[in-house]
Parts: sequence; structure tokens; C-alpha cells
Amino acid sequence: MDAVTLEAPFESAARWQLEPIAVVRNTVHAGIDHGWDAISSEIQVRPAWIAGLRGLEAFSHVLVVFFMHDARFEPETHLLRRPRDRDDMPLLGSFAQRAKHRPNPIGITVTKLERVTTNALFVRGLDAIDGTPVLDLKPHVPCFDAPPGAVVPEWMERLMEGYF
Amino acid sequence: MDAVTLEAPFESAARWQLEPIAVVRNTVHAGIDHGWDAISSEIQVRPAWIAGLRGLEAFSHVLVVFFMHDARFEPETHLLRRPRDRDDMPLLGSFAQRAKHRPNPIGITVTKLERVTTNALFVRGLDAIDGTPVLDLKPHVPCFDAPPGAVVPEWMERLMEGYF
Repeated sequence: MDAVTLEAPFESAARWQLEPIAVVRNTVHAGIDHGWDAISSEIQVRPAWIAGLRGLEAFSHVLVVFFMHDARFEPETHLLRRPRDRDDMPLLGSFAQRAKHRPNPIGITVTKLERVTTNALFVRGLDAIDGTPVLDLKPHVPCFDAPPGAVVPEWMERLMEGYF
Repeated sequence: MDAVTLEAPFESAARWQLEPIAVVRNTVHAGIDHGWDAISSEIQVRPAWIAGLRGLEAFSHVLVVFFMHDARFEPETHLLRRPRDRDDMPLLGSFAQRAKHRPNPIGITVTKLERVTTNALFVRGLDAIDGTPVLDLKPHVPCFDAPPGAVVPEWMERLMEGYF
């Protein structure tokens, strides 16, 4: 196996700290594999960052970046895994899947923005449990986020059957 | 201004550490505002996580999650800002923009996957400078990432004129 060259700018900045800017509130208290589409969540923004919401209400969809704090990544179990442990799925790496068990448990979900209040937003379709810390919010911009002609392998199409 | 209720699960897990799983290599050494579409980058994966790439080659696009290590967020300057400081743009919060100066400088970009090797991937359109640490890689899945009927405000359409 080839070695990866790790040059100075990489090694010298190997760790960073992040702080949550908001927290998720909803009725889901344990992870589920599907059905998130119907879930409404309130995202409560910390006082210091409330001004950062200005203008977000003009978008239909918001990208929620969250920390999957209940995920427990075990390399020997999760780095290579069949999606949902299904026998009819190929053995795949963490980076070829959207599973929550990954080296850095960062979730990224496009949600439907329903409403923005003084200090919170209400979204639909966020696959995060109650109490999940939020790291960032970004407007969904199709010309960045939805490239035309994107293709996925056939196993992903089978996995998604019945998801929504 | 209303207070935000911060309950126990939020406050008790207020900080986490993340480690880079890969590093960006390209020819860009300082931030640019546009032209990223033409940039090819190599993403060199750290040895411990190389197995995680298996199966990624079957997707056309990859979501790259990176840490914008050269961004310097100053709340008084950046939390409310006109995009690119343009007078014809509205005053907007960080969370209504895709600007790099944000409370947690996490970049998320859909890139065109050109090739996967033993320990690296080659992508086009990644707006990250040489040496940028990568936190996660996820396959781009249109049914998650590209909701139909998404709308953006008119200022975003003006901002994007000439971007690509």
C-alpha cells in the first residue's frame, strides 16, 4: 500500500475545536433508519449567533451541519461495512456511504425550511435526534449543491427504495 | 430578544475534537472568489482511512467536508455582512451565506469525481486551497442532496452571475 505524504501544513494543524451554534429539538430520542422525511425539528440558535440568521428566511431549503454525538465509530466494524448490514449490499467504505458511523461524525442534511423566528428555525426532514448539536447552517443553493447529471450506483437506488 | 433554552445534553457536550482524514493538494495558495470550477485537486487520504474509499468510484460526485483553516472569523465584521462587501447586496447573516468566514469554518462542496486511486481521489471544482484539511467525504446522492423545487432569493442569483 502506498504511503500518503503528509506535509507540514497538514501535520501542524492536526486538531481543531468546534463549538455548537445551535441545538436540535424534536420528538425523536433514538436513531431510526427511515421516516425522517416527516419529522419537524426546531433548531434553537445560541444567543451569540442569532444575528447570523438574517436573510435565511428567503431560502426554501437549508443545509444543516450537525455533530452526530450518539454515533460510536469503531474502525474494525464500520470502516468497511455493508449498508444497514444487509446481505444484498456490497462491502463499502465509510466514505462511499451516508451512514452515521464515520471517522468524524458530521451529518449534513438538506432540510425544508418552514419558518424562522427571532432565535430559531423550524425545518422538516432533518435526520438528527433531539439534543443534537448543530455546527453550521448554510442556505441550499442548487447551482452549487445540485449538479446536473449526477449518477449513483445501483445499490444506492435499491437502498433508497421505500426510504421516503 | 428571547433567550435560548440550553438544556443538559447541549451544555454537557459543548466541545468536540475532530481530526483530518485527508488533505487537499492543488495549485491554489490563496483564497479566490470564483474560478474554482476549473480547479482540479488531489485529496490525499491518511493511511488509517484508506479502506474507507472502497466503492466511492461508482459515484459521479462527492461531497467534500473541509476545515477552512485560513478563515479568520470576526463576529463584529462577519456575522452580519454584505456578500463580497458589495453595496448592491443586502446585509445578511453568516447562516444566510456561503462565505468562508463563519463561526465554525466548515466548507461543504459538491465536486466532480474524476478518479480514485489506492490512497487518493481526484476531484474538480473544490473551492479549497492547497493544504486544506478534509474532515469527511460523502457520496453525493441527488434524492438527499438535490430537493426538487428549491428556491433562492434574487440577490443570490445576481451574486452567482459570472461565477461559473
